[in-house]
Amino acid sequence: MYLAGIDLGGTGIKAGLVDQNLSLVCKTSIPTGVERGYVQVINDMAGAIISLAEKNSIPVSQIASIGIGIPGFARKGIATAVNLYWIDVPLESEMKTHIDVPVFADNDATVAAVYEYHLGALKGCDVGVLLTLGTGLGSGIIINGKPFSGAHGMGGELGHIEIVPDGVPCTCGNKGCLETYTTATALIRQGRRCVVERPESRLHHLTGGELDKVTAKLVLDCAKEGDHIALAIVDEFVKHLAMGIGTIENILDPDVIALGGGVSAAGEFLLERVIKASANKGIFANQKYADIKLAISGNDAGIIGAAMLGLS
Amino acid sequence: MYLAGIDLGGTGIKAGLVDQNLSLVCKTSIPTGVERGYVQVINDMAGAIISLAEKNSIPVSQIASIGIGIPGFARKGIATAVNLYWIDVPLESEMKTHIDVPVFADNDATVAAVYEYHLGALKGCDVGVLLTLGTGLGSGIIINGKPFSGAHGMGGELGHIEIVPDGVPCTCGNKGCLETYTTATALIRQGRRCVVERPESRLHHLTGGELDKVTAKLVLDCAKEGDHIALAIVDEFVKHLAMGIGTIENILDPDVIALGGGVSAAGEFLLERVIKASANKGIFANQKYADIKLAISGNDAGIIGAAMLGLS
Repeated sequence: MYLAGIDLGGTGIKAGLVDQNLSLVCKTSIPTGVERGYVQVINDMAGAIISLAEKNSIPVSQIASIGIGIPGFARKGIATAVNLYWIDVPLESEMKTHIDVPVFADNDATVAAVYEYHLGALKGCDVGVLLTLGTGLGSGIIINGKPFSGAHGMGGELGHIEIVPDGVPCTCGNKGCLETYTTATALIRQGRRCVVERPESRLHHLTGGELDKVTAKLVLDCAKEGDHIALAIVDEFVKHLAMGIGTIENILDPDVIALGGGVSAAGEFLLERVIKASANKGIFANQKYADIKLAISGNDAGIIGAAMLGLS
Repeated sequence: MYLAGIDLGGTGIKAGLVDQNLSLVCKTSIPTGVERGYVQVINDMAGAIISLAEKNSIPVSQIASIGIGIPGFARKGIATAVNLYWIDVPLESEMKTHIDVPVFADNDATVAAVYEYHLGALKGCDVGVLLTLGTGLGSGIIINGKPFSGAHGMGGELGHIEIVPDGVPCTCGNKGCLETYTTATALIRQGRRCVVERPESRLHHLTGGELDKVTAKLVLDCAKEGDHIALAIVDEFVKHLAMGIGTIENILDPDVIALGGGVSAAGEFLLERVIKASANKGIFANQKYADIKLAISGNDAGIIGAAMLGLS
């Protein structure tokens, strides 16, 4: 038997089949074409799975389930995703008109956590948390082997832990969300400020004062090289991330908190600082709280993690 | 059959037996005597249960389980509670030497949430959260009918959501915890400041400037009467509580968030403000997040909730 996995994004659909060893045996990608409406998009997703099976001589009857990671949330097979213009779309029932197997859908960041649970940093956790630090802050929670998304499918949004009263405006409409302080976007914002306000900084020197040349990697690299202005930016980033981690520990008390996404490519340099800043955030003194680790975030994790929704 | 429940505190032990209708049929209380060490305390808890059963002509063999709410945390029957000087106490196995039935232990605030789940504001919830706003902020999480305390039993401590960077020092050792802004203690702290700094305030008038006369109820009553200085204190309280509620919604997405504890005695006056301030904190726009309600927090909830640990 095979598990089908689909990573549904605003611009592209990636689909694949995973075998019993949780290996991806084949994959494909097609444009999403959101403007055509959900019936067409779901039709294309089903078509992609069926043609993948045929090309690889796998009978469609050998597909045990379809898992779909979406850029939004789903409850009881009904999906809402702003980027797709989907509101209460009957994803499960519509997909079943094409391929009548169990259909699972969950937030794409939760799907990434499912992948980490089966193959990565969250393996064997009773409670596991993934934070992906990229353009935004994606996140997923695994409890007792299953993705946890709350009573209505809208939970697990750890980027929207509110850490500063009346803080930086967030795309969600609130202010002071964790996401506004602990992403590549935040590092770029602070890096640009530094280029403007601190002409003596290494960031100013390396970019020649051009704001467009500021990247999160450049800020992190300058910090790694010991530039104290870039280090201060990273320290602020880490301080805020540690506030979020403390809240996660005191609410969810995970075995492991895994850090993924582009920013986590800074590796041990970042990880060591995060671990240090997060120590003693848990309220019970002298107790062992979560291990904080780097996620593995392998290739095709979006497809494979989606397929793994069929395991839970 | 009967379920035994014990509410273990730093000064007193309350114990009782609950019947199949979840009614408390008998109860007793004895001093804790923590200085005698855990063996004696557990011996006394067992003795209280056995003598309760005998006095009420209930054979001890009719007791199906013992549940214990503790002022700390427990994992796998091992309990840690600073106020009792307990570190890694083998609560379950020690209790079984006296009465050999399943023994369950959990944090006392989590036990209060279990009570609300079976008999109160969290009834029927897939995900339910209780916040008790008293001297401190107690809290409990119920997921799928079971108390949730994380991987090591230390979760569900929602009072230690960190909402202000470098904020008010908390008894836990961190700064800016929700608990430091949203408890009776916080209302008294702000009320006293008002008495000192605002001689024109109703609080100053009613207390004659005596700080010891400031209570949380007095601050709330002045606000109810429309005193704008007291109202500003309550608004700050509510604003911070709404930050915590937003974080709870975005992480746990509960069906219901119930407010209990002494401060919640302010009733609808407080509840309306909390609901209004918490609106639009969830990241998905135009979606129905948690119902925010008053907890019922009945008499003997600590004993009955502890007994109900045997149901899960």
